Amino acid sequence: MKSNYYAIVMAGGVGSRFWPVSTVEFPKQFHDMLGCGQTLLQKTFSRLEQLIPAENILILTNERYNDLVMQQLPMVQLDQILLEPAMRNTAPCILYATLKIQKMNPDALVVVAPSDHWIENENLFIEDLQTAFDFCQNENALMTLGIQPTYPNTGFGYIEYDKQDTLQVKKVKQFREKPDYETAKLFLKSGNFLWNGGIFIWSVQSVLEAFENFQPQLLALFSEGIPVFNTAQENDFIAQNYPLAANISVDYAVMEFASNVYVLPARFDWNDLGTWGSLHEKLPKDLQENAVVNSKVILENATNNIIRTDAKKMVIVDGISDYIIVDHEDVLLIYPKNKEQEIKSLMEKVKKVE
Amino acid sequence: MKSNYYAIVMAGGVGSRFWPVSTVEFPKQFHDMLGCGQTLLQKTFSRLEQLIPAENILILTNERYNDLVMQQLPMVQLDQILLEPAMRNTAPCILYATLKIQKMNPDALVVVAPSDHWIENENLFIEDLQTAFDFCQNENALMTLGIQPTYPNTGFGYIEYDKQDTLQVKKVKQFREKPDYETAKLFLKSGNFLWNGGIFIWSVQSVLEAFENFQPQLLALFSEGIPVFNTAQENDFIAQNYPLAANISVDYAVMEFASNVYVLPARFDWNDLGTWGSLHEKLPKDLQENAVVNSKVILENATNNIIRTDAKKMVIVDGISDYIIVDHEDVLLIYPKNKEQEIKSLMEKVKKVE
Repeated sequence: MKSNYYAIVMAGGVGSRFWPVSTVEFPKQFHDMLGCGQTLLQKTFSRLEQLIPAENILILTNERYNDLVMQQLPMVQLDQILLEPAMRNTAPCILYATLKIQKMNPDALVVVAPSDHWIENENLFIEDLQTAFDFCQNENALMTLGIQPTYPNTGFGYIEYDKQDTLQVKKVKQFREKPDYETAKLFLKSGNFLWNGGIFIWSVQSVLEAFENFQPQLLALFSEGIPVFNTAQENDFIAQNYPLAANISVDYAVMEFASNVYVLPARFDWNDLGTWGSLHEKLPKDLQENAVVNSKVILENATNNIIRTDAKKMVIVDGISDYIIVDHEDVLLIYPKNKEQEIKSLMEKVKKVE
Repeated sequence: MKSNYYAIVMAGGVGSRFWPVSTVEFPKQFHDMLGCGQTLLQKTFSRLEQLIPAENILILTNERYNDLVMQQLPMVQLDQILLEPAMRNTAPCILYATLKIQKMNPDALVVVAPSDHWIENENLFIEDLQTAFDFCQNENALMTLGIQPTYPNTGFGYIEYDKQDTLQVKKVKQFREKPDYETAKLFLKSGNFLWNGGIFIWSVQSVLEAFENFQPQLLALFSEGIPVFNTAQENDFIAQNYPLAANISVDYAVMEFASNVYVLPARFDWNDLGTWGSLHEKLPKDLQENAVVNSKVILENATNNIIRTDAKKMVIVDGISDYIIVDHEDVLLIYPKNKEQEIKSLMEKVKKVE
């Protein structure tokens, strides 16, 4: 274990397309979405812990999830949990965490990782992360792990690199926002486009330099807090100043401006678990392509469904195909998979009925 | 209230086609199947209580349901609950109850009533019951209330009376067992066929005379107990002798042989609540013919379903029609209405999976 390695785990999201399992009170990353015995946050933490000392892993989340994090990660100290007093996208909270890390260890190398994604082959992930850390150790670089795209997804951002680039770590040509379907198909055909999975690696030095160049105001706001970071006064400073920060993602804030951005094409299997459909893809399935989490089932004339209940519920389904069938606490959802994007808006309808 | 009026409520059935709500441990009659705030047994009791003193209403059930009856009918004394130590169809338990009633009141008039049927218009039921009591007061008669058939049901027995009979209470020509579909259609066309709803009215004198004529052995078996009935020794006698009784319905045992059988065409709306489909028929429905019990719902592109959950669960259904959607404790059933007869056999499959 090298103590220069740090992680910032992003655990403040809501995962509203996974309603009714994922709710504002209890979002996706705190659930065992795949029925594997660990929540997504726990999976993320234990994956990172293979390379990064547990005490160097910071959890960025919302105040309301403090208790959930402490319950699920009992090995984590209270000062490793950074609570955003307001929703301000990724740039402010990453900058805040980075300044804290810098004060602890100015030579730190940091990986920023979402807490709610699925990574299949953890060994390859760790190897890729090691490659990225090594690169950032020697270069002034802002790195991402780029996910090899498997289909023309229109919901992800893409990273373009130079086709001629034969190096393992490639210089990024540009970030491309969510494309339309035809454009996405062209990206895939080109072969030099990767999905942006929101995994970033850099030295604190490199990323703070980028903030200085492209977000001087934001850096100034949080730099004022350096004397009190990691002290008893930190919370007061953050409570007062955090809400003043611009609402901006780290991609927009620095990555799209910087010229020293690099991408390592990831070798591991990745899934953002963004919708029930993408979860279905990731889960083991029966011969009729039904994926079942937690439930005991009797399925007749049923194909290509995803079924998830609490505990060991018995579910009998006859004659239903391509459905999301989710029973969670006070909600039973029986919804076509091809309308999964509408689940988010269902929550609003439910509030009206309740 | 006339103290010669008695009732025998049949509450020993299992209602297996209403699984998973109705189970051997907690059958249909003990559930609030229609979400009206009362269980079917409670509904039956309070209906009968309008004409019959509460203390004259006996509940016939299985030993295992003793606690359920006492919980749901706290006004009932322990000696009003008759426990069958073995499953022996209706003739033995009706005879047993009748002998007990005779010992209390040899002038008793008795109605035998199922505990798990639905009767819409309680006033008409009471009026019809009064008519039947009056008739049996004056005649040596075995009476039934015949249900006006609304469609050619092949699962019910039919009662045929003489077409020319213009009296209110009609002499029964014959009982006709469950017909095939074509025969059932003929019955309906004829106009002088009624459904046998299992509601019988007679004086203890008349029915005991019928048992004497057609089931002398069964009568002898239970008559031996007369000295101990309604005493502390009754339970021992029943435990020893009840299992010796023939397994036979009261229809087969006496009604089909007797010549003094009469029927009053019932004027009330009746439903045997035999399947989820028949329950659907009885429940209030939305404009898309969806019937909902207990649940809060958001239904889109959903027609002609029956949806039932515990408590105030939120159910969201999109694109499902003609289904039974039942969530009860550890079981979620999503099953086509046209396969409702197979639900009974599902219980066996579930046992294998568990």
